[in-house]
Amino acid sequence: MPGNTIGKIFKLTTFGESHGKALGGIIDGCPSGIKIDYKKIEYELNRRRTGQSDIVTPRKELDKFEILSGIYNNITTGTPIGFVIYNKDTKSKDYSNIEHAYRPSHADYTYHKKYKNRDYRGGGRSSARETVCRVLAGSIAKQILKDIEIYAYVNSVGNIKLNKDYDNINKEDIETNIIRCPDINISNKMIHLIKKYQKKGDTLGGTIVCVIKNVPVGLGEPVFNKLHSELGKAMLSINAAKGFEYGSGFKGTTMLGSEHNDRFIENFKTKTNYSGGIQGGISNGMDIYLKIAFKPISTIKKEQYTVDKNNKKIKIKIKGRHDPCVLPRAIPIVESMAALVLLDYYLINKIYK
Amino acid sequence: MPGNTIGKIFKLTTFGESHGKALGGIIDGCPSGIKIDYKKIEYELNRRRTGQSDIVTPRKELDKFEILSGIYNNITTGTPIGFVIYNKDTKSKDYSNIEHAYRPSHADYTYHKKYKNRDYRGGGRSSARETVCRVLAGSIAKQILKDIEIYAYVNSVGNIKLNKDYDNINKEDIETNIIRCPDINISNKMIHLIKKYQKKGDTLGGTIVCVIKNVPVGLGEPVFNKLHSELGKAMLSINAAKGFEYGSGFKGTTMLGSEHNDRFIENFKTKTNYSGGIQGGISNGMDIYLKIAFKPISTIKKEQYTVDKNNKKIKIKIKGRHDPCVLPRAIPIVESMAALVLLDYYLINKIYK
Amino acid sequence: MPGNTIGKIFKLTTFGESHGKALGGIIDGCPSGIKIDYKKIEYELNRRRTGQSDIVTPRKELDKFEILSGIYNNITTGTPIGFVIYNKDTKSKDYSNIEHAYRPSHADYTYHKKYKNRDYRGGGRSSARETVCRVLAGSIAKQILKDIEIYAYVNSVGNIKLNKDYDNINKEDIETNIIRCPDINISNKMIHLIKKYQKKGDTLGGTIVCVIKNVPVGLGEPVFNKLHSELGKAMLSINAAKGFEYGSGFKGTTMLGSEHNDRFIENFKTKTNYSGGIQGGISNGMDIYLKIAFKPISTIKKEQYTVDKNNKKIKIKIKGRHDPCVLPRAIPIVESMAALVLLDYYLINKIYK
Amino acid sequence: MPGNTIGKIFKLTTFGESHGKALGGIIDGCPSGIKIDYKKIEYELNRRRTGQSDIVTPRKELDKFEILSGIYNNITTGTPIGFVIYNKDTKSKDYSNIEHAYRPSHADYTYHKKYKNRDYRGGGRSSARETVCRVLAGSIAKQILKDIEIYAYVNSVGNIKLNKDYDNINKEDIETNIIRCPDINISNKMIHLIKKYQKKGDTLGGTIVCVIKNVPVGLGEPVFNKLHSELGKAMLSINAAKGFEYGSGFKGTTMLGSEHNDRFIENFKTKTNYSGGIQGGISNGMDIYLKIAFKPISTIKKEQYTVDKNNKKIKIKIKGRHDPCVLPRAIPIVESMAALVLLDYYLINKIYK
Repeated sequence: MPGNTIGKIFKLTTFGESHGKALGGIIDGCPSGIKIDYKKIEYELNRRRTGQSDIVTPRKELDKFEILSGIYNNITTGTPIGFVIYNKDTKSKDYSNIEHAYRPSHADYTYHKKYKNRDYRGGGRSSARETVCRVLAGSIAKQILKDIEIYAYVNSVGNIKLNKDYDNINKEDIETNIIRCPDINISNKMIHLIKKYQKKGDTLGGTIVCVIKNVPVGLGEPVFNKLHSELGKAMLSINAAKGFEYGSGFKGTTMLGSEHNDRFIENFKTKTNYSGGIQGGISNGMDIYLKIAFKPISTIKKEQYTVDKNNKKIKIKIKGRHDPCVLPRAIPIVESMAALVLLDYYLINKIYK
Repeated sequence: MPGNTIGKIFKLTTFGESHGKALGGIIDGCPSGIKIDYKKIEYELNRRRTGQSDIVTPRKELDKFEILSGIYNNITTGTPIGFVIYNKDTKSKDYSNIEHAYRPSHADYTYHKKYKNRDYRGGGRSSARETVCRVLAGSIAKQILKDIEIYAYVNSVGNIKLNKDYDNINKEDIETNIIRCPDINISNKMIHLIKKYQKKGDTLGGTIVCVIKNVPVGLGEPVFNKLHSELGKAMLSINAAKGFEYGSGFKGTTMLGSEHNDRFIENFKTKTNYSGGIQGGISNGMDIYLKIAFKPISTIKKEQYTVDKNNKKIKIKIKGRHDPCVLPRAIPIVESMAALVLLDYYLINKIYK
Repeated sequence: MPGNTIGKIFKLTTFGESHGKALGGIIDGCPSGIKIDYKKIEYELNRRRTGQSDIVTPRKELDKFEILSGIYNNITTGTPIGFVIYNKDTKSKDYSNIEHAYRPSHADYTYHKKYKNRDYRGGGRSSARETVCRVLAGSIAKQILKDIEIYAYVNSVGNIKLNKDYDNINKEDIETNIIRCPDINISNKMIHLIKKYQKKGDTLGGTIVCVIKNVPVGLGEPVFNKLHSELGKAMLSINAAKGFEYGSGFKGTTMLGSEHNDRFIENFKTKTNYSGGIQGGISNGMDIYLKIAFKPISTIKKEQYTVDKNNKKIKIKIKGRHDPCVLPRAIPIVESMAALVLLDYYLINKIYK
Repeated sequence: MPGNTIGKIFKLTTFGESHGKALGGIIDGCPSGIKIDYKKIEYELNRRRTGQSDIVTPRKELDKFEILSGIYNNITTGTPIGFVIYNKDTKSKDYSNIEHAYRPSHADYTYHKKYKNRDYRGGGRSSARETVCRVLAGSIAKQILKDIEIYAYVNSVGNIKLNKDYDNINKEDIETNIIRCPDINISNKMIHLIKKYQKKGDTLGGTIVCVIKNVPVGLGEPVFNKLHSELGKAMLSINAAKGFEYGSGFKGTTMLGSEHNDRFIENFKTKTNYSGGIQGGISNGMDIYLKIAFKPISTIKKEQYTVDKNNKKIKIKIKGRHDPCVLPRAIPIVESMAALVLLDYYLINKIYK
């Protein structure tokens, strides 16, 4: 079953491999008459791009996008939006030494077994390069959802944690530093930690918090398509994601019902918000907040033992230019996935008004 | 957009409210020629049913199911399997005092705002009563997936945790106690804790671990429909679920890449299994293990303040018979959701062989 | 791939075999707050039912339906509508003599090859009995689409044709006779013809015209999901349907462009309506009219040669009670399929307003 | 609801307007390991392209395609196939005189009402230019379906009809003439007729027959997704299509059941084939044959009266270069739609083996 589409009404389908000719996608179901600012798309792509700071891979992907259809004089026409991003800086030769190797914790082995015909250059379709299309579409989704505010930030890197709740940070502080953590002391520690392990050729994981504000009441569909189920699916589809929680999350499992229940007060607001803005799978108008766990990136520069496709033990050393920590570049991806899900439900909800 | 269907090939669609005439569903896409043992369906329904022990609600739902089509002489015919479970023990009068109230952390408010026409009796469609159809379908899925082993157990209740990895427990121990935790000491503590708060009219949350063994390599689809994304979506669609992780999960975020990488050894097995049996969204043949967080049930017997539909502050006391902790009855639901997702991908994978 | 669902937003999924316990379905995506008149459902089911006249099968299917969920105090709640119709008058013994035969032009052979495990009793899922669920759901769709008028009539039986355009008949005349043709002379001839061949144990085909009035401008989606494509698919899914046309149809192929073009006049009406109310796959506000071809029913009482499942030549004589002509009972089915498609697009269109 | 995708497993999504930058698409769900011959794609595109003969539009669309992903060293990799065709010869100025006009029987009015923001240049998304993507994808589908033979031919132009059944023609004769009718006398008459009306600035319609041979038994899904329903939907989605029939079609409505029934003979073949290779919605191994009705193209060069967007009566004369008859260029489109549907069901059928 094809797995390259997300959304039911605002549908994004993507294509493209890290070392192929181009990546791109089609957005089908976009409403007509909406002004799209290409500068905003560029801004988001730049937040995701390589080479943006010295704690991300120095690879230079230009990420110059072309909109091929569906937008005329900067206004959406209601027809499908086709877009393409040609690959430029793809040094395929870097991968020649691992042509036959199954790199630990990569998708080499599973792709090879599933598809037989594997493109060994840089992960092909399993590479995070694929997420560039998510960010482009997410930026369009954000522009349509203009009243809904979506932002994400780095909450922890390894053992260094931001010990503040989402409603105790200033979102303006997020972009003040290269790790995208809204606390200058903590962010410095995070950057220091990353640089330390970067030198050793190792990698780090961490968590990202995403906040969604001003969501109208009523988004989400009961039973199998609850709003948080789709958000969870979308976030877990990002490379390196290992976990997802919303509202009180795993911590909420240690509370009593009488503590955890969000008492309604005036104007149908709730006094606490352990529910995380979603009740019975449907938004209740309070802030939605999510946390996503990212493992340390599998591409390390240290020498590793593994096997090749003939099951022979080998030692490999991955060359190429890679990220020491996925988190800063994952921020716009997380926001984009949130925007895609929210917009889809926003449009669905119009049916039943 | 309708949200009452799960699956792409093996598709379950369900209907029914907690206090309506009946619940039921249709399984479309079930392969033909498969022997279905009705006793196994009953067994699973009994693990989910009310009144099975003194730490679950004493409500007596008989859960007698009728298969109406699609199975002829106990063998599937390939046509849709329609099934129905008539409601019996529904004391609607218990709910009359909360007709106009929005119970804290329930779906009363969101359903009312979304659908206008709310059935106030027991949560209607948002009630966990709905999961009876999931367990019935899940039992059929399990019977089709006979080589794949799926089991779940309670891993924590409040602050009482089973401190063992999934591969250090005996699955035979799970059903030896009413909380379904495979450790007699811990399970006793859990049961004790639940009874303590049950008396106070309060409720508890916790976590469930689900293990899936003997999964063939190659299940799952790249990018948006990764195997763990669909598992996450399915688990998060269960009432009271607040979080999901697989493999190393949130803990994995504090490891280094060099520690976390699962080195391949002989026969394409991996020495460690932080990946949780899934790489690049595709099963790699190692054990899949998941953890799901459940909040304490919102239906507490303690008096609570809230508002009614006119935004007037009121005090309510929920009557009726309710669970002090969702976990023991959620075990077969978790297993069922795992079976539904696995079977769907198992069938999809046959296309590309 | 399961094929028992129609619709994208207003989704009907059905189950049930002609000689099984029950038939039924689930409507998912029905808007809430709509009053449903059960008498109207009964009225439509009676138009489809057996035994209604002496030119249809005398089999007595009671078609007593039960709504199991989704409607509370006659008002839809927005939750899935589950319904069931238990089979009563199923004389399975009538079929014992054809257990191993592949009846000519039936689905016996194809079902057996596809599913291996065939239910030989009366066609099972391939029986037109299945359409009872379509009519029930179609009646609900009609009630929601109250401003859109949908009616169908018999346009030809064998070589006897009604030589009037759809806008030259009185729709009140349709139900004045048992064949449902709005011309008393022609309908008498049709009935006479059917009775003649009924006695000989033979069957007749014919055509049905369906008219849809007061359709808002803008229903339908471009390219693959054009309004007439979905109408075509829906009509062609009815048992015995062999052809479909809309607007000028096959006749239009012999016209010149200058004759066929529908010139716009005042208020964006068109002078002619060869387009059949649809331009570029989208409704233009003019009347939609369709014609559907139905072959003569395959179940004849005459002796026939065929083969059995071992490829052995055999002579069979089908017993049981069958229709000599599908048309009069197909009228409400055609209307229902039109209503289901129109409502689906009507709801989809609300997204983009 | 987005309508730019066809297929459930082998899914084609397309984008692009006639006068935009480019058209293109994504094929998701293509099996891996299949050799694709680009020359064959070119061959099919050339059969569809403009300027191929003096009875089609002299417009020169180069239709040079680029495959951007999913095929590596000419072998499919199982990842999505992205492709693009840049527009070259688009003379937008030709359309300036009709910017505000609603051309008769075009989609100008319906698109404008539906999307507000209309691209008046050449029909935009409603232009048959869009079908170039169908042919590209259809050629890939044909290459995968190598054992299934698919071909189409012109059966009538205006009142000139080929009076032969599909099994009395030589398929080698189809490409011997520019109208693509496998009878040299009839094709000459057709060409003569087209040229006659071409000079007058008028257009002609006609019918196309499509034949599908060597179809395995068992393709198609019961009830709503019957094989002929999907074929009908696919064919009716082609620009200018007004009708569809399969097997005996509309003619079959005048036969008796005893004449129409296809008696099984040796090896489960049938003596006649009025069923058109499909019984109960499932292929039975006999030849599938379809007929599709195409209206005369709406773009005529004669002066016409119509209204503009302010409902003012105007006289227009469409400039530009247009086809006098859609049929010769529609042949590869019809074949492509058949290939897309057949391949989709072929893959689906593998699930249940």
